[in-house]
Amino acid sequence: MANVLEELVNIAVSIRDESCAKVEPPLGPLPDPLPLNVTGVPKLVLTAEECEITETEPITLVEKIKEGKYTALQVTKAFLRRAALAQKLLNCVTELLWDRAVARAAELDEIFTKTGKTVGPFHGLPISSKEHFSVKDRYVNASFVAWAENKVQKDAHVIEVMESLGAVLFVRSTQPQTIMHVETETILYGRTVNPYNRNLSSGGSTGGEGALLGLNATPLGMGTDIGGSARWPAASNGRYGMRPTAGRIPMLGLVGPNAGAESISGAIGPLSQSRKTMEYFFKYIIGSKPWITEPALLPVPWRDEPLSGKVKIGIMWSDNVVNPLPPVKRALDIVVEALKKGVPGWDIELVDWEPLEHAEAWKLTSELYYPDGGERVAALLASVGEEQLPLTKWIMSENPYVKKQDIHSLWNLNVRRDAYRLKHSDHWNKTGEKDGHPVDIILCPVAPNVACLHGTAKYWSYTSHWNLVDSPGAVFPVTVVDQEKDVLEKGYTPLNEQDKFFHDIYAPEKYLDAPVDLQIVSRRFNDDVVLQAMKIVEIALGRDS
Amino acid sequence: MANVLEELVNIAVSIRDESCAKVEPPLGPLPDPLPLNVTGVPKLVLTAEECEITETEPITLVEKIKEGKYTALQVTKAFLRRAALAQKLLNCVTELLWDRAVARAAELDEIFTKTGKTVGPFHGLPISSKEHFSVKDRYVNASFVAWAENKVQKDAHVIEVMESLGAVLFVRSTQPQTIMHVETETILYGRTVNPYNRNLSSGGSTGGEGALLGLNATPLGMGTDIGGSARWPAASNGRYGMRPTAGRIPMLGLVGPNAGAESISGAIGPLSQSRKTMEYFFKYIIGSKPWITEPALLPVPWRDEPLSGKVKIGIMWSDNVVNPLPPVKRALDIVVEALKKGVPGWDIELVDWEPLEHAEAWKLTSELYYPDGGERVAALLASVGEEQLPLTKWIMSENPYVKKQDIHSLWNLNVRRDAYRLKHSDHWNKTGEKDGHPVDIILCPVAPNVACLHGTAKYWSYTSHWNLVDSPGAVFPVTVVDQEKDVLEKGYTPLNEQDKFFHDIYAPEKYLDAPVDLQIVSRRFNDDVVLQAMKIVEIALGRDS
Repeated sequence: MANVLEELVNIAVSIRDESCAKVEPPLGPLPDPLPLNVTGVPKLVLTAEECEITETEPITLVEKIKEGKYTALQVTKAFLRRAALAQKLLNCVTELLWDRAVARAAELDEIFTKTGKTVGPFHGLPISSKEHFSVKDRYVNASFVAWAENKVQKDAHVIEVMESLGAVLFVRSTQPQTIMHVETETILYGRTVNPYNRNLSSGGSTGGEGALLGLNATPLGMGTDIGGSARWPAASNGRYGMRPTAGRIPMLGLVGPNAGAESISGAIGPLSQSRKTMEYFFKYIIGSKPWITEPALLPVPWRDEPLSGKVKIGIMWSDNVVNPLPPVKRALDIVVEALKKGVPGWDIELVDWEPLEHAEAWKLTSELYYPDGGERVAALLASVGEEQLPLTKWIMSENPYVKKQDIHSLWNLNVRRDAYRLKHSDHWNKTGEKDGHPVDIILCPVAPNVACLHGTAKYWSYTSHWNLVDSPGAVFPVTVVDQEKDVLEKGYTPLNEQDKFFHDIYAPEKYLDAPVDLQIVSRRFNDDVVLQAMKIVEIALGRDS
Repeated sequence: MANVLEELVNIAVSIRDESCAKVEPPLGPLPDPLPLNVTGVPKLVLTAEECEITETEPITLVEKIKEGKYTALQVTKAFLRRAALAQKLLNCVTELLWDRAVARAAELDEIFTKTGKTVGPFHGLPISSKEHFSVKDRYVNASFVAWAENKVQKDAHVIEVMESLGAVLFVRSTQPQTIMHVETETILYGRTVNPYNRNLSSGGSTGGEGALLGLNATPLGMGTDIGGSARWPAASNGRYGMRPTAGRIPMLGLVGPNAGAESISGAIGPLSQSRKTMEYFFKYIIGSKPWITEPALLPVPWRDEPLSGKVKIGIMWSDNVVNPLPPVKRALDIVVEALKKGVPGWDIELVDWEPLEHAEAWKLTSELYYPDGGERVAALLASVGEEQLPLTKWIMSENPYVKKQDIHSLWNLNVRRDAYRLKHSDHWNKTGEKDGHPVDIILCPVAPNVACLHGTAKYWSYTSHWNLVDSPGAVFPVTVVDQEKDVLEKGYTPLNEQDKFFHDIYAPEKYLDAPVDLQIVSRRFNDDVVLQAMKIVEIALGRDS
């Protein structure tokens, strides 16, 4: 068995290494020793032009291709080289798609040269995806050693759509074992680390994308999120990320072990360098009417400006289970203070949001993740002797709420879920009882902590809560950990064991340079409200116009 | 046990009888003997004005209330008396809501008198519902003897919405045992019959509504449909009925045994005297944004005129499993010939629709109905010694495809379902391969036969097929059985045993006066396309403008 495992691991690792070896010209040497914060390394290894390209806001970059300042090939090669560098620094890549990306970029350039027209709103923009998105004629292991030789025939639907809009798929990235940690470590590839501080996690499960983003090695990554997997890695790296309402973005061609499980829905979401890229992602994918070829999708139109005049913002300072740690609390203060100063053209009302039974909701969410008691996943791991990593045990095999269900107990779980969703919706409507204007968005933490110490991401509720009620949630950068300001309150009394765990491990010096994001949540299908509200918040922060 | 059963049955029957006894003035004597076709009886028992009111197209009736020609109370009482008469003739009522309806109608009249304004587009329109819709402070048994004393606290959400739009709930109606036959018979209330021919079924499971409609004893009934339950009864009685895409019409407050089962979705649909009433039903319910209070609903907007210019119609002459019998085949001919003559303003293209593996699809649908092998329903029946009626055995306990699943086999079923849906969607898209315009709608039978002989409704696939792929389907009247034209083809060779069953039982004289409806189906969420296409078909039939 050990030999089988080793052989399969070698297959995956060879694919990755051979793909990265295609980089032309090869990367020069890295600083030795490497600093903890490697975000300054690219400018030492890449050309000035490559740095300029890869550090340009993605939609602006497309504009520059349209203006003829760069070719798609130039842009694509710059990102390919930067992603290969990211792999060396952060261990975040599973496969560099050099040949495919170069061919696609050249094709786009040819079309542009011949017709003077771009193919779509993402013309020439390199995009990346988590490993478990199918890529034509490539292997997709979904982090399972057992699947190292699983070759697929077709691109995932969302990749097809994005390429039809002009994008160039150029790299695939790491995700954790079982794709159910909010960090990123596998038996296949090891651990992915954070570019701001290699002692910290890049988040997960879309952690490879998170690390690429943090190093500006991808303009737009695609992840999945059933408990926070698009938001944690974006937040851990100080970038933007979103988990939309389920059923809006094409899902065909994702590879995973629990196909057919429906009690809680995952969704594909973007992780990006800018809010605008996320807007474009939704606007143009939804505008392409993907439900015509993927009938499970919902034809809910995208609205450019759903809000007008007044915005009521509920501030969730804590979920009353695990209180946010100092940097997160300070980020909330920063945004609230900025909003209090107002935004021209907007009537902003701030109210406190009272969380509704988040501890109970987490128990239910955990149960819903594994109605088979985790048996299928455990069997797949065991089939080649793949050991369960600690965070796999934590969420699945040692999770006290995970139980093997039968059909009736599954139905009862679904009924409890629906009852909670209804109660939550009533709770939300009550915020408009007096003035007829319920809260438009909730501003809340992404997690109790910032990018976490490896192995400590054992509280998902600030993100998974919104998966339970199928609310869209997006994260945006606010600040970085401040060694002076972000100290623990003296004599803090923990709410419970979980809260104690997070407070006990915290000290600002462990989180040097870690970015701090916050989250904006709205009601189901109000994905467009989330992004418009984020724009307003960014204006308040003096960042946007 | 027998005593318990009898007592519970008596409770339900007493509620019904006491409610019908409230009719004022009491109904006069019925013809003796009763004719087979009782559609002429109302004019012998009701007043001329009551007949005029109850035979007015529903939206026109609302107009007349607005114009002051009738009061809501007048209209409501006319329907209450006609429904009480329907009960005597057809055994279709479970409870007449005399007090509630009269109070509500009086309230509407008062508002109108005071303000000069109507409450909404259904102001003063009486509406009815299947028994398993919750009604405040009333008993809801969902056809189970065991639940005869199940009192509920709140109206079903759709009733709340319809009343907020001005409607008046006035009667509740029968449905079959387990609400899973497409006929209507229970241990509680016995059998509901067809007003056109009392030897025939009124259809099911919304069969009480079907019978009420056939006798013009309701303008608008609300049913549910997970396999044809809104469409069969509408069609059996020569009226309009629709099963919309799931998730558009409020579902909260339906009482049933399998809450939490999600593999195949039921939907509430209207059964009505006119197409226009159905349009109003969708337009205004969806316009009320019911997803704000019922978060499971999908905010897909209603479009008034989604079609323009060209309509491509696929004709499904048969599903290649059970061929339609002569009256149904003739109805298809009638509509096709009418469409061939064209409709001004429309470019109508007719093509043959090739059915995609309907026999396999039915097996899958059957399996999805009862992933617990029917255990919960069987136990509920057995708990009070309620025997399984033959059609309950047919669909559930003796259905060869029904099996008790575990979590993994359920997931596998869901995967098979999704694969079929995708294949079906691809199949649909292929109809536009040459001209870029796929079929807009399919015209097809509702069933192989017209209103059936009691106990013979053992083929649902012409309706249930569309539930499997979550396609909207609506039925509309075309003709009635013709004793001369609708004779069996001599020497017909049956396709298989099922086909033989339906051909063997058919002879036109058994179906005297039976109406013949056809069905229009479109793709998921194209409910508005179905109704606009129906309008075009009705114009072709010389019936509408």
